[in-house]
Amino acid sequence: MPTVDLLLTNAIVVTMNPDGDTHNPGAIAINGDSIVAVGPADALAKTYTAAQAIDLGGRAVIPGLVNAHTHVPMTLLRGLADDLRLDVWLMGYIMPVEREFVSPDFCRLGTLLACAEMIRSGVTCFADMYYFEEDVARATADAGLRALCAQTVLKFPTPDAKSYEDSLDYARDFISRWKGHPLIVPSVAPHAPYTCTPEILRATAALAAEFDVPLHTHLGETALEQTNNRKEHGMPVIPWVKKNNLFEAKVLAAHCVHVDDGEIRTLRNANAGVAHNPTSNLKLASGVAPVTKMLELGLNVGIGTDGPASNNDLDMFEEVRLAAILAKGFSGDPTVLPARTAMTMATRLGAAALHFGGLTGSLEPGKRADLAVVNLQSVHNSPTFTHDPNSIYSQLVYTTHSHDVTDVMCNGKWLMRNQKLLTLDEAALTTAAQEYAKRIDTFLIKRERSVLSKLIAIGGVTESESFEVQVKARVEDPATVFEGLKSEAVTLVRKAHYHEYDTYFYFEHPETNRVRYREDEFIDDKGEVTQARYRLTLIGEMKERELQNTVMLSRSRYLAPAGQSLRFYREYFRPAEEREVEKDRRRWLVVYRGVEFFVNLDKLIKPEVSGYFIEIKSRTWSKRDAEDKAKLIGELMALFGAETDESLAEDYADIGL
Amino acid sequence: MPTVDLLLTNAIVVTMNPDGDTHNPGAIAINGDSIVAVGPADALAKTYTAAQAIDLGGRAVIPGLVNAHTHVPMTLLRGLADDLRLDVWLMGYIMPVEREFVSPDFCRLGTLLACAEMIRSGVTCFADMYYFEEDVARATADAGLRALCAQTVLKFPTPDAKSYEDSLDYARDFISRWKGHPLIVPSVAPHAPYTCTPEILRATAALAAEFDVPLHTHLGETALEQTNNRKEHGMPVIPWVKKNNLFEAKVLAAHCVHVDDGEIRTLRNANAGVAHNPTSNLKLASGVAPVTKMLELGLNVGIGTDGPASNNDLDMFEEVRLAAILAKGFSGDPTVLPARTAMTMATRLGAAALHFGGLTGSLEPGKRADLAVVNLQSVHNSPTFTHDPNSIYSQLVYTTHSHDVTDVMCNGKWLMRNQKLLTLDEAALTTAAQEYAKRIDTFLIKRERSVLSKLIAIGGVTESESFEVQVKARVEDPATVFEGLKSEAVTLVRKAHYHEYDTYFYFEHPETNRVRYREDEFIDDKGEVTQARYRLTLIGEMKERELQNTVMLSRSRYLAPAGQSLRFYREYFRPAEEREVEKDRRRWLVVYRGVEFFVNLDKLIKPEVSGYFIEIKSRTWSKRDAEDKAKLIGELMALFGAETDESLAEDYADIGL
Repeated sequence: MPTVDLLLTNAIVVTMNPDGDTHNPGAIAINGDSIVAVGPADALAKTYTAAQAIDLGGRAVIPGLVNAHTHVPMTLLRGLADDLRLDVWLMGYIMPVEREFVSPDFCRLGTLLACAEMIRSGVTCFADMYYFEEDVARATADAGLRALCAQTVLKFPTPDAKSYEDSLDYARDFISRWKGHPLIVPSVAPHAPYTCTPEILRATAALAAEFDVPLHTHLGETALEQTNNRKEHGMPVIPWVKKNNLFEAKVLAAHCVHVDDGEIRTLRNANAGVAHNPTSNLKLASGVAPVTKMLELGLNVGIGTDGPASNNDLDMFEEVRLAAILAKGFSGDPTVLPARTAMTMATRLGAAALHFGGLTGSLEPGKRADLAVVNLQSVHNSPTFTHDPNSIYSQLVYTTHSHDVTDVMCNGKWLMRNQKLLTLDEAALTTAAQEYAKRIDTFLIKRERSVLSKLIAIGGVTESESFEVQVKARVEDPATVFEGLKSEAVTLVRKAHYHEYDTYFYFEHPETNRVRYREDEFIDDKGEVTQARYRLTLIGEMKERELQNTVMLSRSRYLAPAGQSLRFYREYFRPAEEREVEKDRRRWLVVYRGVEFFVNLDKLIKPEVSGYFIEIKSRTWSKRDAEDKAKLIGELMALFGAETDESLAEDYADIGL
Repeated sequence: MPTVDLLLTNAIVVTMNPDGDTHNPGAIAINGDSIVAVGPADALAKTYTAAQAIDLGGRAVIPGLVNAHTHVPMTLLRGLADDLRLDVWLMGYIMPVEREFVSPDFCRLGTLLACAEMIRSGVTCFADMYYFEEDVARATADAGLRALCAQTVLKFPTPDAKSYEDSLDYARDFISRWKGHPLIVPSVAPHAPYTCTPEILRATAALAAEFDVPLHTHLGETALEQTNNRKEHGMPVIPWVKKNNLFEAKVLAAHCVHVDDGEIRTLRNANAGVAHNPTSNLKLASGVAPVTKMLELGLNVGIGTDGPASNNDLDMFEEVRLAAILAKGFSGDPTVLPARTAMTMATRLGAAALHFGGLTGSLEPGKRADLAVVNLQSVHNSPTFTHDPNSIYSQLVYTTHSHDVTDVMCNGKWLMRNQKLLTLDEAALTTAAQEYAKRIDTFLIKRERSVLSKLIAIGGVTESESFEVQVKARVEDPATVFEGLKSEAVTLVRKAHYHEYDTYFYFEHPETNRVRYREDEFIDDKGEVTQARYRLTLIGEMKERELQNTVMLSRSRYLAPAGQSLRFYREYFRPAEEREVEKDRRRWLVVYRGVEFFVNLDKLIKPEVSGYFIEIKSRTWSKRDAEDKAKLIGELMALFGAETDESLAEDYADIGL
């Protein structure tokens, strides 16, 4: 009788092989890292002598689950910010914190924490995409899990690279040294079409092809990505990346929420795997991937949790269950994506999507011994029906919780026995994670208190107009201003005409400055809008000082181009109050007695105020200079027919309040 | 210093009161069944002397969750049949099994099993709707949980009542005896508008109003329900039930998936509560309820698991999480239904939806001590951020699992301490549940083996045409038949013209009979379709016997009106093979030599066969009679110009195969 190292017996063996075989009571014979045989318990008992036999007491054995897409170090950012728009969440929270905190140490700790969680929920294999991926790989191997570890490359600076060339060098070095590892398949991850240049797509695909390793990426996550891709490149995302040689590599594409039938066929023809991430796609309101169609067309579709910052956990049982019910609710057909199919996605199809099909994903002779033991006898899983052979899948998908997993083996090695982790120290990990959270909290609290820090956190702010003299006054008839401008004492340098929409954000704490979001519509001589400009201004505390003629020395300001929408900033800054100002503005840059002044003639539309306002401003550097300019401003006001005693210190946003 | 029975201290107290107060470290003072005070730990320590103080070591305390809609005894049917259409699932599996098995004992056991599961997942209160509701109530009170127990009333016979009057009597008796119970609020449940008559709606509303107890019902679960309601009653569901006085009672309406803004306003004005059941609505592909709109309009919307036969568990943490992410994915807006709102729905709003707002749903002085202790320090919940006051809700909704609940108290009494149940014997319950499952399995396996049993299970079958003589032959020219009918020897009794669509279901096992689903379109003299008839026929084994003129003595048949669609029967019977036959049929009932014969003149359209077929049939009772009639049939065949030697024994479904 042949001898094997281990015989797991008296179990409900759910093989997830293509025939859907189950054995009850069944057994699995294991030698070293691999499965030797799977079958009825009595048959295997007669065939093999086992060095060790473990009676599983009627528990189920399933293939270790495959988490087809995640960013494991982000466990350290789970719950950092929720219920926000993708852009606010990403650019307002995740990226600033990543810039500040992501390091090899961060990645190692975050990965170990993630591995502890995944082992507890029956996962033995995952696909990762993050920074410092070699640290992720090392931590994963130490934990004993199998993974596709893909080093991120994108066109922006990242926590681990100043440029994409650096990331690419890192990826090449990482792949060349880790290729052939028993647990880790090193890989490269061009982040997404919209964060990569065509050069990055081509270079990463060539690298993956050269080393014959998979390439991991995000494709078609949002409708906006597709819209922008069509606008910029004249075609949808999938043909665009195909044109840029992406499919020369073995691709694992995360999301594919917004792909049409033609794109699904292209993915199929390229033998690309897809990672479906139902929780993340719902939580970030990206949509629902057409999974039923993908499966129908023969695509290898796995299931992923996505990163724990957008999920917020790594629980594959939750994910499988959601995949099964969401496909029904989304299609209106309760018979689609039945439990057995969902379970197949979480195991065999997921492994195939990672291009790990020969290694893991089912309990079959020759594959690695990657498995989980599941207790189906708990209260929430009782009773068990047997009249339908699909009942076992129904139990695993609809009623089993991650906590029902009692034992996990990967590559022939136990990682958990009787719910005790054997390769990781959970208490030490959670304590260290909490230390990071404390530092991140401090960083964010400090930033949240200062609107300036929040502005700086999203980049590109410049200090400007730090010191200026200015006056504002009502004018009943704008004709007096136009006549004043024609005076010989005044030289016109340039002029402009805007329609301005301002939104002021006010904050609860009085020490906080206010933020103005301004849309300037440029109006030409024919009264047509020719272009628009968006600016964000942090209006500092009023450090005003009255000079003669009610001219005031104004506040410091910080200015930033507003690349995001008003909605973005509203959600990012979370103001306590908002005020809107809309006006028609004619602006002139004039020279008067050798000094440059800006003259604004404003007609307020919102709040509705009769008459016009004139503003005259000039930069200044000293008190003496300010006083001189204040005097000149007084003269100009008289020239423009404005009464200086009617001048106003208040901002337009404060008028009438 | 005032004395209290119990002080729970050193906890993150998440009150879920309208102000959203949390205390960390916080404490709760409890006297008897009620909360006396909630606040910071040090403040309560200074204010109260406690007979017992329990240090919760930094765990969170939340109000006990409110499961706003379920059918608890159905734990015994969990996983019975999945991934099927609502009608197949309900009429093909659930209802036949309920007719066979539901008893007071079944309801008691199922309820106790459900209570064990709910206590483990932090639920202290639920709304139930089932049969033998007094047994549900008694079991719930024994387990120590709070519940709205609503006795189902509908227009069909139920496992506990032969008619709706019986159910109504049961409900009145139950309510009158249980009203005022410290844990149970007895109630009545008109099942749904489409399963109730207007009389039932009015009678149940009057009963609930008379005793001032809530009324529980299903409203607007499917689009079909709304379509049918508009068709039958000329208005949507909500106005229809309003017209039938339903809102004279305090209503708790489950589902409300398909309700428009006007209907939501009607519900709001009636102060009706709504139970949102996201898993069940997705799994049965009913749709997604407009929860965000409901909340916006001020409706009390709770969250429910629905029955464990359609979920398949009672895990409120899964449900809350799904409610939060589904609203985002469904609306395309990731900021809707933030974690705090989801948690409010699962607690305070849920209690208000059950009309239990004064009793439970938040940790506030004066309310009952209904609470759950949750460990937020496990691996999947690490780390914890504090920079945002919403972080605690985010943790509870997005990362907490039911297994993180360590202790549960209801009405001031501990039901679980350190994950050990104090009022229920889980092992005994799961063993007893498994006994039921075994009996149900046996019942279903026996039924599945016999197509006749499956047909009988959905009701209304009649045995017919048990013995008949018949012949079928080709005729090239139908004119010879029309001429034969004009013969003096033939008396025409009546005639008909049909367009017939037949679908034959074949099964794998040779002993199994085949099932024919037939749609008969009735065609008038102008060739117009006037009506249609749907029939299901079980065609028994061929017990044919050749008589003279190739007349055969045919098989036994069972006939049933086909109230469901072809699709229903396909999914219900799961045939191994299907064949379709379409034909134009002219049929005459004639008398020839004092004997009645049916004459069919058929033109096959599918499969396409040239020429016509004639069939002549007559019922018979004895071999002698059969032989006499076979002779007469031979004469008729000659009269109609059909060659008897061309007669065919095979069924149309077998032609050309």
